[in-house]
This record gives sequence, structure tokens and C-alpha cells, in this order.
Amino acid sequence: MFQSARLPHTIDKATWHAEEPKLREALLNAQYDLKQSGRFPVVLVIGGVEGAGKSETVNLLSSWMDPRHLVVHAFPEESDEERDRPRMWRYWRALPPKGRIGILFGAWHTAPIVDRVFERIDDAHLDQRVQEILRFERMLADEGALVLKFWFHLTEKQQKKRFRELADDPRTAWRVTNLERKYRSRFARFEEVSERFVRATSTAEAPWIVVNGRDAPYRNLTVGRTLLAALRERLDQKPAPTPDRSPPLIASVDRVNVLRALTLDRALREDRYERELEKWQGRLALRTRDKKFKRTALVAAFEGNDAAGKGGAIRRVTGALDARVYHGISVAAPTEEERAQPYLWRFWRHVPRRGRVAIFDRSWYGRVLVERVEGFCAEPDWMRAYGEINDFEAQLAAHGIVVAKFWLAIDKAEQLRRFKSREHTAFKRFKITDEDWRNRKKWDDYELAVCDMIDRTSTDRAPWTLVEANHKPWARIKVLKTLVKRLEDAFDAMP
Amino acid sequence: MFQSARLPHTIDKATWHAEEPKLREALLNAQYDLKQSGRFPVVLVIGGVEGAGKSETVNLLSSWMDPRHLVVHAFPEESDEERDRPRMWRYWRALPPKGRIGILFGAWHTAPIVDRVFERIDDAHLDQRVQEILRFERMLADEGALVLKFWFHLTEKQQKKRFRELADDPRTAWRVTNLERKYRSRFARFEEVSERFVRATSTAEAPWIVVNGRDAPYRNLTVGRTLLAALRERLDQKPAPTPDRSPPLIASVDRVNVLRALTLDRALREDRYERELEKWQGRLALRTRDKKFKRTALVAAFEGNDAAGKGGAIRRVTGALDARVYHGISVAAPTEEERAQPYLWRFWRHVPRRGRVAIFDRSWYGRVLVERVEGFCAEPDWMRAYGEINDFEAQLAAHGIVVAKFWLAIDKAEQLRRFKSREHTAFKRFKITDEDWRNRKKWDDYELAVCDMIDRTSTDRAPWTLVEANHKPWARIKVLKTLVKRLEDAFDAMP
Repeated sequence: MFQSARLPHTIDKATWHAEEPKLREALLNAQYDLKQSGRFPVVLVIGGVEGAGKSETVNLLSSWMDPRHLVVHAFPEESDEERDRPRMWRYWRALPPKGRIGILFGAWHTAPIVDRVFERIDDAHLDQRVQEILRFERMLADEGALVLKFWFHLTEKQQKKRFRELADDPRTAWRVTNLERKYRSRFARFEEVSERFVRATSTAEAPWIVVNGRDAPYRNLTVGRTLLAALRERLDQKPAPTPDRSPPLIASVDRVNVLRALTLDRALREDRYERELEKWQGRLALRTRDKKFKRTALVAAFEGNDAAGKGGAIRRVTGALDARVYHGISVAAPTEEERAQPYLWRFWRHVPRRGRVAIFDRSWYGRVLVERVEGFCAEPDWMRAYGEINDFEAQLAAHGIVVAKFWLAIDKAEQLRRFKSREHTAFKRFKITDEDWRNRKKWDDYELAVCDMIDRTSTDRAPWTLVEANHKPWARIKVLKTLVKRLEDAFDAMP
Repeated sequence: MFQSARLPHTIDKATWHAEEPKLREALLNAQYDLKQSGRFPVVLVIGGVEGAGKSETVNLLSSWMDPRHLVVHAFPEESDEERDRPRMWRYWRALPPKGRIGILFGAWHTAPIVDRVFERIDDAHLDQRVQEILRFERMLADEGALVLKFWFHLTEKQQKKRFRELADDPRTAWRVTNLERKYRSRFARFEEVSERFVRATSTAEAPWIVVNGRDAPYRNLTVGRTLLAALRERLDQKPAPTPDRSPPLIASVDRVNVLRALTLDRALREDRYERELEKWQGRLALRTRDKKFKRTALVAAFEGNDAAGKGGAIRRVTGALDARVYHGISVAAPTEEERAQPYLWRFWRHVPRRGRVAIFDRSWYGRVLVERVEGFCAEPDWMRAYGEINDFEAQLAAHGIVVAKFWLAIDKAEQLRRFKSREHTAFKRFKITDEDWRNRKKWDDYELAVCDMIDRTSTDRAPWTLVEANHKPWARIKVLKTLVKRLEDAFDAMP
């Protein structure tokens, strides 16, 4: 990857002074057109070797363009907020919305290379990090982002020279001792690992563009012109739908499925319910106050048929929790800010810190449920969502977070009873809308979507719990018990 | 993934007898429409647990459809031909051409699962195999194939019962002892590994469809209807181009690049050339007759400007080789058979066995050179080719094959001299065509394509050698020397 970047590249001053104002104007125009169109975000990543001018170019780009539609993020040491969450959380936070350019300095590429160079991980683990990155960048591209990645390279000689220059300048001298110590005698290894990494993370949608960083005018002209050409090309394209390559998923040919196999009428006697409720709420309260809970976190997602009793079940859970510890997220239509981001963004933002609980009333599964059934998103988009969701939950689980997912199931007759009772009870009337009746007509479509969802996203570390919910007390106790058991299993697995 | 497949599924006989003739007719019609359209191949993979009816369903599908447009492949023990080549070679061989259905029984999914269950590989290596498969299947989808993957599952109880049935039937009893011994007490582990594997290799383009295999009518109806629905959906779709998400690759802003950095006029005196030729041809002859060569193989690809002297260089190489050992492949426009396959297929078919040499006069790089420059393939297709080519060569290298790639470079003036000399020499006139003159007009476009190719596909294990070729003797000796050194390095690295 570095063959061209090892050559001595230069742009003379006269050319630079002639080209820079033109480029700057064209970029500013493109930036406004992007803002106007609001069609896609630009994720501009700048990585590369130390001393190759990354921050200088980032500063120049910021000065060229309108700072109101530009966000710049650097990723120094993780904050305690960030350390408490999965690795990719800080990058999700930094994603630019549609219509804007986000300049990400270093980003998700730095750590895997450094970790490999300093032998903190082996090749197989580097491959796993590469795969994580490929999936993330493919998701960005599938969600419509223009992804531009620049790698600034230097030869070993050029890097040494650059360090000497920095050392001679009193404003930068402080940076050099550390850097030199870190990279002295490791240049070849660093180059070898980077080259392999850069090649492995170059894809058609997000190829690395490798640039020699020695000569500022050459480096800046290359970045500026590439950004301009990419913006213009994308702005001039007519938005085209992703071709549908997924085979259709058909319903079970004998109508037997995981929902129909449930015995929905399971029940608890009133007095038994009171005792069980007290017992399991008490245990949940204890577990979330246990000092082991500080090392994990709990994400609980509630899905279910309309009127299945999600709200009631959630209240029995939160009733056991310290209000300072849990956060309830009621998922309705996305806000404007959320619509300008990849669909998982609005769930990533609510990922809890260690020692905390996040309870989602409806969740990221909307994509493969309501959005699929109502045609709000195209088949290729909800088909890829299964994998993206599994990735998301795997990242939570890998970070030690307990992920619990509940499907509260009632049958059609019970739903009708509840709808009617809501219509006839003044204080419940707000809970029933025309939409509920419309959804009910699509019962079979939802059933197919739910079965596919359970088959395709129930995993060892983030299993679905199907809750028989025709009888509310039974459902509530099953939810509480499941949460307690999941936490106890997690505690038992701790060293 | 197996939740639904663990339920007791059945289709009664009456339903089956009513449905089967209709389904069969509809499938046959769809098969003819597919043949007629010739638009895409269908890759139908059947995997799953032992005893779940894989071969029965494959036989039924074959009997339903027209065998002339159907190919069925099973993958038992590798042949010696197959063992001598990279793992994926046997699957490339088995791919159906456009317009046909290929039923692949087991295929590339079996070995990774079995290897993991029997602890021959660990989780990190399983992940690597998963990635290899994901890239392969994505390539198939990108090349237009309809990929359908069925996983036939049984519960542990159902499997035991099935083994007993097979044991009671004198025609199948022989199969059982082995199978039972192999899977006894391993069912849970097998299921755990498979579930993880099936989930990880389920993508939007090639999702697994999991089917309980116990009841033949249920199983066959599910497969038949899914195949039918997928065929109909794809046949009814208008072919749409892949959206272009790649940023444009621009030429070096200071016009400095790896080709221009070459000193093309390097030369050898006539008498020195004769001596060197004898020396390096002799060494190449020895190395390819060495018994260590039986453990490797050599793939040499020659690319270069028109009239750069590829043919002459190749003749100096083959002059040193035993004719029984090498195979020369002159790459021109693909044949009809080749056009019906993914573009790398026609190169995979020529991958040499151990102890053999394959010499390509032009190669798989046509996709990122002539096809890119002449617009024979769209930008998303040649952009993804860099990664696909790196994968291809990495698989050759991982198998121990030495991959050598030569770019023979001449300058524009030297090319003009050679073109004219060809026009004026009777026995050389066949070597110059209008196309050569047309290509020459696109010199700059080709230069950009070559520089991108070298940056993006030169790897540690499959590096490009740039050959200064204004002076033919110099070029020929550099090629011979490089081949000898690469072989000697490979021998040195052998244990």
C-alpha cells in the first residue's frame, strides 16, 4: 500500500498559492451543497504515522470550510465515561449527521495497530479487530455515509528528520521525547503492521488513500482534491435504492412456530403473585446493589404485541431499582437528530455505564418488526439489520453487559379484550389508538417478523425470553425472575 | 438460529400429495425461465446435522427439475488433485454457470464446524474461516449469484431415533456405526458450534434458512417453496446496477508515481547478457527440479505496457523449464463458459498442483487495468476487485504457492519505436493491431490504473516486481533472477 507514498513528493510554492484559493472555494461550495441536500454524512478519517502532519491538515481543513457544518474529533486517552462502555461507543458518539462533514482524527484504526506493534495482541486478535472495523464501516456505507480514509505515511528517514524539526522548535519540543522513545527502533515493525492493516481494511466502499505526509502542500492538495472529487461525485449521483439480493423469508409451511408453541394462558393465583413479586423484586434490588454489579451493567429490552403489558412489567422492574441507577427509554418515532444518523445510533447513545441499568420500552428491534412489516425500510436494509443487531449486542456482551430481551406474547382474542377494555375505561383510553387497530389487521405479518427475529437474533449471550402474557401476573414474575437469574449467572462467571 | 427448527414440524400426507405436483411444475417453469434469461446462477447449499435428510432432499430436487440445467456436487474426502491445491479450489470448480442451478451438498461450511467440534482449531481460527467464507459468499453475491443456504437441523432425540431407523434398514445399516460413534455425546457441542457458525455466516445476501429435517414433506416443501419464491423474485427484478459508493481515486497531484520513478533505460552489454542468461536459466532449471519444489508451486503473472516484451521474457523463463512441469496461459477475452462465471473463475481453474508452474501472459489484473480503463466493468466492480484479488493471492500463498507478479514498463517513445518496427517487419506485423494504437492514446489512464494496482495489491507474500524494460536483455534477466530468488526464499522458509 505504501509504494507510492515512499516516493519524494512535492508541490512547489507557486503551484500551491495558485491552487489553494480555487480549491478552498470549491470545497466551501461543495460543503454548502452537501448541507443543502442533507442527503448523507461525510466521515473523513485521518490516520497514519507520527509526525506526518495529521493535525496540521485537520486544522487547515477546518479553516477552509464552514465550521458550523463541520465537526472535528480527536481521540486521546479514553475518558472514564468512555472506559465504562464498549470500545466503539466513543466513535458512535462522534459520527457526523447527514449533511455534515465529520473529521475523525485517528479514530478506530489507531489502537489495533499500536496494540499489535507492542505485542499486546497477536495476529488472530488483530484479524478479529479488523473484522469488527470492516463490519462497522460497511454499516456506515450501507447507511449512506461517504467514508473517506486518509493514511499519512513517512519513510523512516523522513520521520527522523521530522522529529528533529519538532525538537528544534520550542513550541513542539515537548512532544518529541515521548514520540521518539516510543517509535525508535520500531519503525519497520510499525510499517509492516500498518501496511497489512491498511490493506485489510481497504474496501470498495471505504478504501484507504495513502499519502506521503512530508510535504505539506502535496499532502493538503491531495486530501483537498480527493474530498472535493468525492463530494461532487456523490452529490451528482441520483439516490438509487440498494439492489435486493436477499431471498424472501417465507412463513413456516405447517404454520407451527415459536409463538404458536407457547402456552399463553399460564397463570398465577393472586396471593401467590403477591408473595413472588415481593421475593423477586427484593432479589433484584439486592443484586443491583451488590458490589459485583459495579463491574457489569444491565440492558433490558421489552418488545411484545400491542397491549401485551410491557408497561406494567417494566414498572414492576423499576419498582425494585434505585432511581439513580436506572434509565428508562421509551422508544417512539426517531427525532430529527436521530433520523440523520445510522439507525442504531439512537440506541448506542443510551448504552449504560458500568453499574447502571437501561430499560428500553421497545427497542432497536423496531427495524425488523414495524419497519419491516410497514415497509418503512427496504428488504435489504432490514435483512442486514439482523447481523448489525447481533454485532451490537455482541459488543455489549463482550464488555460484560448483561443483555436481556423479552417478547411479551398474547393471543388475538386476549388482545381484543384488552383493546375493548381500554376503549371503555376513561383513564386507559389514551392507550388505544387507530394504529393499534391497524397493526392488529397485520397480525400474521407481525407473527412472521417476530419468528424470524427470534431465530436470527437469539444468541448465547443475548437470548430472547418469550413471555406468556395472557395473564399479567405470570408475565411480570417471569420477567423479574429472568433478570435476577441473568445477573446471578453473570456474577457467578466473574473471577 | 435453531429455535423454530426444534419444534415438532409435520406436513400430512394429503397436503403433500396435493402440493407436490403444483410445486414441481412451478419449479420446472422457473428453471426454464432461469435458463432462458441466462442472467444469474443459483448456488443452493444444503448443510446440517447428520441424519436430517440432506441427501434425500437433494435427490428429490434433482428428480423434480430438468437435470440438463442442474448440477449436483457432493464433497466427500478430497482427491489428490484437490489436496494439492488451496482449500477453496474444489468449490470454485463446482460453481454453476449463469442460467443454471448448482446444488452443493455440504460444501465450504462443513469442515470449519467439524474441525472446531473436534478441537482441531480454536475460536480465533474458526473466526478466520468464517471471514474467508463471508468474503467468498459476498463475492458470489456481488457477481450476481442467487445464494440460498439451507441448514437441516434435528434435536438430539430426533437424531438418535433417525440413527436407529437407519440401523434397522439393511440398506443403510452400514452408515450408522460410524456416525453414531462420531456424534455420540457430542451433540450438544456440535449444536453450539453450528449455531454460532450459522449465525455468523448469515448475511442479507446469503442468509441461512434453518429447517427441521425430521419430517420429509415439511422439509421438502420448505426448501421447494423457498427456492421457488427466490427464483421468481429474482427473475421478476429488473437488473439494476450496483450503486457506486467508492470515492474516486485521483492521480498523484505532483505527477510523481512509481512508474515515473523507474529508470527505464537500464541495460546489459550483449556478452554479459549471454552469461547471465545461462546462469539464471540454469539456476531456475535446478530449483524447479529440486525435491523441495514438490512442496510448493509457482504462479507467475506477466503484465506490462503493450510491446513491453512480455512474450520474450516468458520464453526465457519457459526455456529453463521441463515442459511436463509448466503450463502457459495466454489470457485473452474470456470464453462463453468463462463469462458465465465470476471473473476469477477462469484463473482459479488454472491454479497449479504442487510441483508445477503456471505462467500467465496477462492475468486476473485485467479487471483493474483494461476493464477499468475501457469501462468494461463499473467502478464498484473494479474497486472491489482489489480486495478479491488480494484474497485470491493470499489463498495461494497460504497454500505454499510462490506468487510472482511482473510489470514490464517501457516509456512512450520506446513503445512508438517498437510499434513502428512491428509494422515494418513482415514477421512481426501480426503483433500490432489498431487496438494497440487506441490503448496508446489512453496512456495516462493506464498509468493511473497501474499505479493504483501496484499500491493496492503488492503484498508481502505476493509482491509486484517492477521491471525496467526499455532494454529487453535487462528485463529478461531481472525476471529470471526474481523467480530464482523467490523460489530460494521459499525453500529456505521450509522446515
